[in-house]
Amino acid sequence: MEKWERLERQMAFIRETDKIKNIFRQTQISTGERYENDAEHSWHIALMAFTLAEHADVPELDMLRMLKMLILHDIVEIDAGDTFAYDVKGNESKREREEKAADRIFGLLPEDQAGEYRALWEEFDAMETPESRFAAAMDRLQPMMLNYLNEGGTWNRHQVRLPQVIARNRHIADGSKALWEYAQTFLEDAVNRGWLEKE
Amino acid sequence: MEKWERLERQMAFIRETDKIKNIFRQTQISTGERYENDAEHSWHIALMAFTLAEHADVPELDMLRMLKMLILHDIVEIDAGDTFAYDVKGNESKREREEKAADRIFGLLPEDQAGEYRALWEEFDAMETPESRFAAAMDRLQPMMLNYLNEGGTWNRHQVRLPQVIARNRHIADGSKALWEYAQTFLEDAVNRGWLEKE
Repeated sequence: MEKWERLERQMAFIRETDKIKNIFRQTQISTGERYENDAEHSWHIALMAFTLAEHADVPELDMLRMLKMLILHDIVEIDAGDTFAYDVKGNESKREREEKAADRIFGLLPEDQAGEYRALWEEFDAMETPESRFAAAMDRLQPMMLNYLNEGGTWNRHQVRLPQVIARNRHIADGSKALWEYAQTFLEDAVNRGWLEKE
Repeated sequence: MEKWERLERQMAFIRETDKIKNIFRQTQISTGERYENDAEHSWHIALMAFTLAEHADVPELDMLRMLKMLILHDIVEIDAGDTFAYDVKGNESKREREEKAADRIFGLLPEDQAGEYRALWEEFDAMETPESRFAAAMDRLQPMMLNYLNEGGTWNRHQVRLPQVIARNRHIADGSKALWEYAQTFLEDAVNRGWLEKE
């Protein structure tokens, strides 16, 4: 493929991904004044990943691959939408909706890049490599932190209680035992302050 | 410093950076329905950097350093605000305001990381290394692309004309001649469609 044609396809992908700024999550930003979108969330967890990497259980993570993974991981939601973490039914059809989205959106790119980005997204989703486990830990820790900062926003709106929060987020420990320990300190504090119901 | 104390400081920084989601730029997202904020912008240019890297004039850029740079480059605007590219007066005091902001915000981190992030921000700003030149090209190309997609938003609101757009953005060519050539094709198209005044 000619260099110029590759550039045209790359730019088509980059233009398309602007739509992620209108995919809103269930989490509100720290001030609680509005919902967070996928672009903001992805930026925040990329920053977290290289800032907190020393707390990963596996040393010497491939940071570049992990950052690409975090920047790309929500792009499929442009078509598939955000599936709320505690929505059981929505999570059943999630995989199929997201695979179709991955075909279309990554398919805008030159083939080699389409393959690379698709593989990174699948690696993230499978949570089998040290990089994807730590990346998944960032993806879970960040909304918990925001829910703490905005005094229990999502937890209260959706009547989510401590045991559900723990069940959903304990896999943070698969990426970093230290960060899961830390997360539990602020969950406990949220319970004490009345922002999260104990049971 | 104890590991736990390092973690507390890193999390203080990560909480503080949530504020970047409320720093709005002069550029609107592609649909033109609202202004873009710094978190969204930083996410988008990080994605662009690794997607378009093959078009850099210097091969073998240090992609990890460049991504960190792009993710961090606007954090100083939490205190210093967004300075509009075409605002001459605002740009005179920009450096001083941003240095104070860098001291405070990066200063939340453990010293080694505060130093690393500050150096990355200064490298970005100085535009002397191949990585910072390509990063700066992303930082300029992205809003131009959005202004094209939303049919001349910022250009028309601020009566910015083609010669100013070219003068402000031609340093894209210091990072990538191919991308500057590409950018000129859509600027020409914007003029033809009446979204950007020729002079």
